Amino acid sequence: MTLPEAAEELVRLGTGFHNRGWMLGTSGNLSAVVSRDPLRLAITASSIDKGRMNPRQILEIDNNGKVLQGAEGRPSAETLLHLEVVRSMGASAVMHTHSVWTTVLSDYYHADSGFSIEGYEMLKGLDGVQTHEHREWIPILENSQDMAALASQVRALLAERPKTHGLLVRRHGMYTWGKDLATAARHVEILEFLMEAVGRRRMMEPT
Amino acid sequence: MTLPEAAEELVRLGTGFHNRGWMLGTSGNLSAVVSRDPLRLAITASSIDKGRMNPRQILEIDNNGKVLQGAEGRPSAETLLHLEVVRSMGASAVMHTHSVWTTVLSDYYHADSGFSIEGYEMLKGLDGVQTHEHREWIPILENSQDMAALASQVRALLAERPKTHGLLVRRHGMYTWGKDLATAARHVEILEFLMEAVGRRRMMEPT
Amino acid sequence: MTLPEAAEELVRLGTGFHNRGWMLGTSGNLSAVVSRDPLRLAITASSIDKGRMNPRQILEIDNNGKVLQGAEGRPSAETLLHLEVVRSMGASAVMHTHSVWTTVLSDYYHADSGFSIEGYEMLKGLDGVQTHEHREWIPILENSQDMAALASQVRALLAERPKTHGLLVRRHGMYTWGKDLATAARHVEILEFLMEAVGRRRMMEPT
Amino acid sequence: MTLPEAAEELVRLGTGFHNRGWMLGTSGNLSAVVSRDPLRLAITASSIDKGRMNPRQILEIDNNGKVLQGAEGRPSAETLLHLEVVRSMGASAVMHTHSVWTTVLSDYYHADSGFSIEGYEMLKGLDGVQTHEHREWIPILENSQDMAALASQVRALLAERPKTHGLLVRRHGMYTWGKDLATAARHVEILEFLMEAVGRRRMMEPT
Repeated sequence: MTLPEAAEELVRLGTGFHNRGWMLGTSGNLSAVVSRDPLRLAITASSIDKGRMNPRQILEIDNNGKVLQGAEGRPSAETLLHLEVVRSMGASAVMHTHSVWTTVLSDYYHADSGFSIEGYEMLKGLDGVQTHEHREWIPILENSQDMAALASQVRALLAERPKTHGLLVRRHGMYTWGKDLATAARHVEILEFLMEAVGRRRMMEPT
Repeated sequence: MTLPEAAEELVRLGTGFHNRGWMLGTSGNLSAVVSRDPLRLAITASSIDKGRMNPRQILEIDNNGKVLQGAEGRPSAETLLHLEVVRSMGASAVMHTHSVWTTVLSDYYHADSGFSIEGYEMLKGLDGVQTHEHREWIPILENSQDMAALASQVRALLAERPKTHGLLVRRHGMYTWGKDLATAARHVEILEFLMEAVGRRRMMEPT
Repeated sequence: MTLPEAAEELVRLGTGFHNRGWMLGTSGNLSAVVSRDPLRLAITASSIDKGRMNPRQILEIDNNGKVLQGAEGRPSAETLLHLEVVRSMGASAVMHTHSVWTTVLSDYYHADSGFSIEGYEMLKGLDGVQTHEHREWIPILENSQDMAALASQVRALLAERPKTHGLLVRRHGMYTWGKDLATAARHVEILEFLMEAVGRRRMMEPT
Repeated sequence: MTLPEAAEELVRLGTGFHNRGWMLGTSGNLSAVVSRDPLRLAITASSIDKGRMNPRQILEIDNNGKVLQGAEGRPSAETLLHLEVVRSMGASAVMHTHSVWTTVLSDYYHADSGFSIEGYEMLKGLDGVQTHEHREWIPILENSQDMAALASQVRALLAERPKTHGLLVRRHGMYTWGKDLATAARHVEILEFLMEAVGRRRMMEPT
């Protein structure tokens, strides 16, 4: 995949997520591996308006986050987390969205460090899941502005739970990923759906 | 109806349902009878991205689910359920959506094996219903990955309740159908509306 | 206003209301006065799919509901209610929508025969209202399939409360109107907004 | 920035906010500074339909609210508040939206004269905020039709709390602003998101 190809696809996906209210304002960032060896990542520039994305705002970086190509801006502050997920999971694309429901659940279940989603057919949209009887644990990390520390927590978490498909950062949003761009984008829709369903189900019987 | 005509219409409907959040990710599937004798069904291929459907992903199958025409993919895993509904109800189109509200209600009312919707004017949008005083029972089946077993439960259920317009599979979604494509598509909108209304009404007075 | 002008505008408005989820399936109907003396009303044909409206589905009727012009279908079953509102209020356009929130509130407040909305700035969008301190009473009528009886209740209600801007029919939806098409369409948006706000506010402090 | 440039951008933003349900009917108004010395403000005309905005409905006014240019209508009744925010905060653009969630929260927290939002990553989308640990106080003013009195309250409030990014008027809506149009528009999306998140979080654990 070339940088222009990745840029076109990330802009299309980002605009769609913005329209659904999952990346409002300048929130969220998306990346895709354009080369594995050496590692080259296409990633959204920092602080861009997700309602007006254009391909010039997609940058190519190396495995240290250094910009190699790209017309506008600097890489997202969360670049370290994207690189960590790419390395830990062998992912080819990483998506970080900020929807209302993921934000609400990341706070509601924070004291338990996560929550499980089980018995939903939609779980089969997660890569490698064959049955709705699957139990998916959604880990929640405390938010931090220290990206190196957060990346290190992500690494430890994913080493301990290598079958994870997505994680939440408290009052912040969701990270998910995939073996290719289409899988990562599908994981966004699947997990956003499941979290809205879990949240509304909970509200039918408030504790 | 020819396969290309059915394909064009199923893509249009599927894209619209995706945009409303009723078929996110790869969830959901749609079918339409293209010939009655012998039975030929146009059906969405398995695992396609509902946000990027194209007519090549609509397959023509026979009454055993064998693919006769179609460029991409294999038939949906739920083909058996579509065929069962076509045979049991004499339906000409079957729609399976995965919205948040149908998913939530399919779980909330599961212990009762269903719930009734009564007194809503919107019920008159269901084929053959003449008054809001109609009581529509929405059956809920336990989810299963054994499609033959699930199809057999659907057959028994529809034999017992032949006036059913739609059913839920627990934590999975809704099946509805109609005597033609337009009726089936209208049933999706009517039932999705009614379930959101029932769900929100319940939340006004939580038990 | 000619029939083609009214038809174009009603199709534009109806499609927009459908897209917002306020006229799903075949629900809802819209009308506009094309001539006052003799009375001629442009009105949506019965049972049309609100997601695929076209101008041929707008009919011209006289003050008895008899069709004078129009290519497709027969007038909406609720024609009598439209004619009643036009006569009682001197309205030039009548809009009947079926949103989830109006449906839910029409049931929730039914025992009180209505509810009041007071103190909202958005009330100033209602024709003739100058301050948010206005108290708008939203009457709720029991639903019925006897349109003559329902029209007669509407007449009595509007005679008693001539400053009403909209009313609900239980588990059915909303009627609103205006001195011209733009005012009636604005009333739809204003009242839909207010009812969602009232409903969500109530849910913040369930009784 | 010229009046035509400001008009084009305000129409684009207003139409987008209308589509999200944040400026339904004729609610809401937007402004942008086109010249600082002497002060010239481009502002939406009063009572325009936000679903059908056009650039002719954007007026240029001076620091007394007198219209200098513009084809249609008179300035919004809330012009005094826009001018007050421009002067108090040195803002270059002011946005007043009427969403359901800001309306609901403006009432729910009214007795406390406001509420704080703390710990949300999305807060970093507010100009000058560097960390999610920021605590943003959202002041709530009682609504009034006396715009001079309301403007004077806004002045006092902003003098006391000069780091405020947005404020609510009870059962009315939100005002936010920015050092340029893009910042003000981003603040709308950021604050609307945060208020929906705060509202839904509250509903997960009703008091």
